[in-house]
Amino acid sequence: MDRRSLFKLTGASMAGVALSSLPVAALARTETTYRPGALPRPSAKNPLLLNFNENSIGMAPSAKKAVIASLDKAFRYPDDQRAALVSELAAKFGVSEKHISIGNGSSENIQGIVQAMIHKAQANKRRVQVIVPDPTFNYAELYAKSNGVDTVKVPLTQDLLFDVAAMQKAAATFKGNSIFYLCNPNNPTATITDGAVLRDWIANAPGNQFFLLDEAYAEFVTDARFVSGIEWVKQGYKNVAVTRTFSKLYALAGLRVGYAIAVPELIEQFEGFMSIDNTNLAAASAAVASLQDPNFQRRSVESISRSRAIVTQALDELGLKYVPSNANFIFHEVKGSVKTYQERMKAQHVVVGREFPPAVGWNRLTLGTPEEMTVFVRVLKDFRTKGWV
Amino acid sequence: MDRRSLFKLTGASMAGVALSSLPVAALARTETTYRPGALPRPSAKNPLLLNFNENSIGMAPSAKKAVIASLDKAFRYPDDQRAALVSELAAKFGVSEKHISIGNGSSENIQGIVQAMIHKAQANKRRVQVIVPDPTFNYAELYAKSNGVDTVKVPLTQDLLFDVAAMQKAAATFKGNSIFYLCNPNNPTATITDGAVLRDWIANAPGNQFFLLDEAYAEFVTDARFVSGIEWVKQGYKNVAVTRTFSKLYALAGLRVGYAIAVPELIEQFEGFMSIDNTNLAAASAAVASLQDPNFQRRSVESISRSRAIVTQALDELGLKYVPSNANFIFHEVKGSVKTYQERMKAQHVVVGREFPPAVGWNRLTLGTPEEMTVFVRVLKDFRTKGWV
Repeated sequence: MDRRSLFKLTGASMAGVALSSLPVAALARTETTYRPGALPRPSAKNPLLLNFNENSIGMAPSAKKAVIASLDKAFRYPDDQRAALVSELAAKFGVSEKHISIGNGSSENIQGIVQAMIHKAQANKRRVQVIVPDPTFNYAELYAKSNGVDTVKVPLTQDLLFDVAAMQKAAATFKGNSIFYLCNPNNPTATITDGAVLRDWIANAPGNQFFLLDEAYAEFVTDARFVSGIEWVKQGYKNVAVTRTFSKLYALAGLRVGYAIAVPELIEQFEGFMSIDNTNLAAASAAVASLQDPNFQRRSVESISRSRAIVTQALDELGLKYVPSNANFIFHEVKGSVKTYQERMKAQHVVVGREFPPAVGWNRLTLGTPEEMTVFVRVLKDFRTKGWV
Repeated sequence: MDRRSLFKLTGASMAGVALSSLPVAALARTETTYRPGALPRPSAKNPLLLNFNENSIGMAPSAKKAVIASLDKAFRYPDDQRAALVSELAAKFGVSEKHISIGNGSSENIQGIVQAMIHKAQANKRRVQVIVPDPTFNYAELYAKSNGVDTVKVPLTQDLLFDVAAMQKAAATFKGNSIFYLCNPNNPTATITDGAVLRDWIANAPGNQFFLLDEAYAEFVTDARFVSGIEWVKQGYKNVAVTRTFSKLYALAGLRVGYAIAVPELIEQFEGFMSIDNTNLAAASAAVASLQDPNFQRRSVESISRSRAIVTQALDELGLKYVPSNANFIFHEVKGSVKTYQERMKAQHVVVGREFPPAVGWNRLTLGTPEEMTVFVRVLKDFRTKGWV
């Protein structure tokens, strides 16, 4: 299920969080004593939303200013601003403009890549499958499904890492083309795949295997073993595409802008399966301003880093296991049912992530601002006094 | 060629218009005497852009306000705003929310519809083709091409109307499925297809024919014979989808938002070939505000109507033929080479549309504001004194 459908189903909108799953008496029982802090107590009107990996530091003030300044030209097609963004990204990564495809969020880049690679296989009368780790972000699977293409899900190892050998085997034993979707860092585990392992895998893969590396959270990585796939694109590899987004570090999820980096002949193929005029003025203006604002970028990384420290310290104190996080979320153990935990959090107007089977008993928690995570930690510690975690 | 590629090729950006195709001496010769008016004389820095059917009245002030107010939540995914827009559109047209698919501009809706219908045919091992009038807006053709699917182009009649019999024959003689792309009013001719003709055609079409009705300019129609395809969707027709946009009447081309209306089972199929999180916050906020602003809508229609009158009066005076316009542009005859005409206009910093073969000798002119069209008419009349038109 994608986020939008989940949103519809749960009714967990910004305007309010439905509490209908708990009877009023239960609600009363779950009220915790509120300790004053920097932030007001979460309420039905102002819930604490830690469920969609949004970056609640908010967009850069420079980006906001750029959007507002752009609006007088909102009646024009946004070709200038798109061109400026492509040029800015090319300079940032040291690639040509033809190496870059702007997406309506990296979700559209994922669509373009998956559907173009499926089309290419099928046009050559070859069978094709998508291979993903499980759990992971599921858009590649969804886009494959609308093409009638199956996705093979390879469970993570006991350590919640990619089972590289099993994924390689899934491709090797298939008569046809395989498209690997590898989220690095992975969502929902916030783990990275060792750059050396990935490099060998890609360098030695046969011609019927393709790698889509989703690096939505790359800017938050702290593990030195991480290597961006952009390096391999720059070396001319034709079996790899990297996607990135402005939704996370740059806090622009609402404006929808991401990009793919790959060799030009691939970029051209991907764009055949994407919308032609896909880059909106507000997003492009905000993205360019954000790229030109290193102070904001630093502030954003620092904010997540502080939030991560606040949460891991609490999890350590409570003896709850977690996976070291390389993203703006953290995957941690919940004692007992995740569904019950979610509902109890919801009763406190704190909306945490969901369970991602087959990783049962674990919860994905978005890292909001340090102030927000302080509020979360208070609620979590109260839960411990009640014996709930 | 799509607009974005044309933009790159011509360098005709908002920031300036390249004049490199004319030598300096020629430029000097083509300078006309400027007569003062409400608008400053077009310049290299501020060219008069009448080439992309943008609505230079600009976005509604209410929409601008809504966008600015929305930006504090730009770090969140825009599900709330998307939901509000779907709901607003459903109410406006008297259909269910499941009849509506929001697109990243209607260009993405066209993509979703064309590619979903192609996929459906191919999954059933059927051949498939796209049939379009010629000339027309070319995105359906482009999206078909990236799927390796051919487009049959059926020339307009002598009157620049759809050759319905020839289009029907192109489908009847093909062993496989046909997808008709019918732009109504048509771009670049601004003509409509009689509702009675279209109704009969759709009602009597065999099951292997599908109709994509692009109604991007519907709000500007004055011809009483026009019927929106939304009527037939509401009657439950499963062989028709209608696309509309906020780029024209609502002057929001830069923000990218359009929609498709069709029966729910079709909408679901289309969305498999569109980006999942395709609606940006700024566009959705602006679109909802614009839908709730009937005064702006009226002002926008009136502006185009006045501009149309200014231009047709001048064309009448000059004895230049034109097709009665049902859109925010007008298709008119140019004496001699359209390319020369375009270049001479460019030398005056007026950027007009291009020629659309096979309609040779005709030019598509975007209707800007009445003030802008007054400036255009002055230049056009000066051209007559020079014997250029």
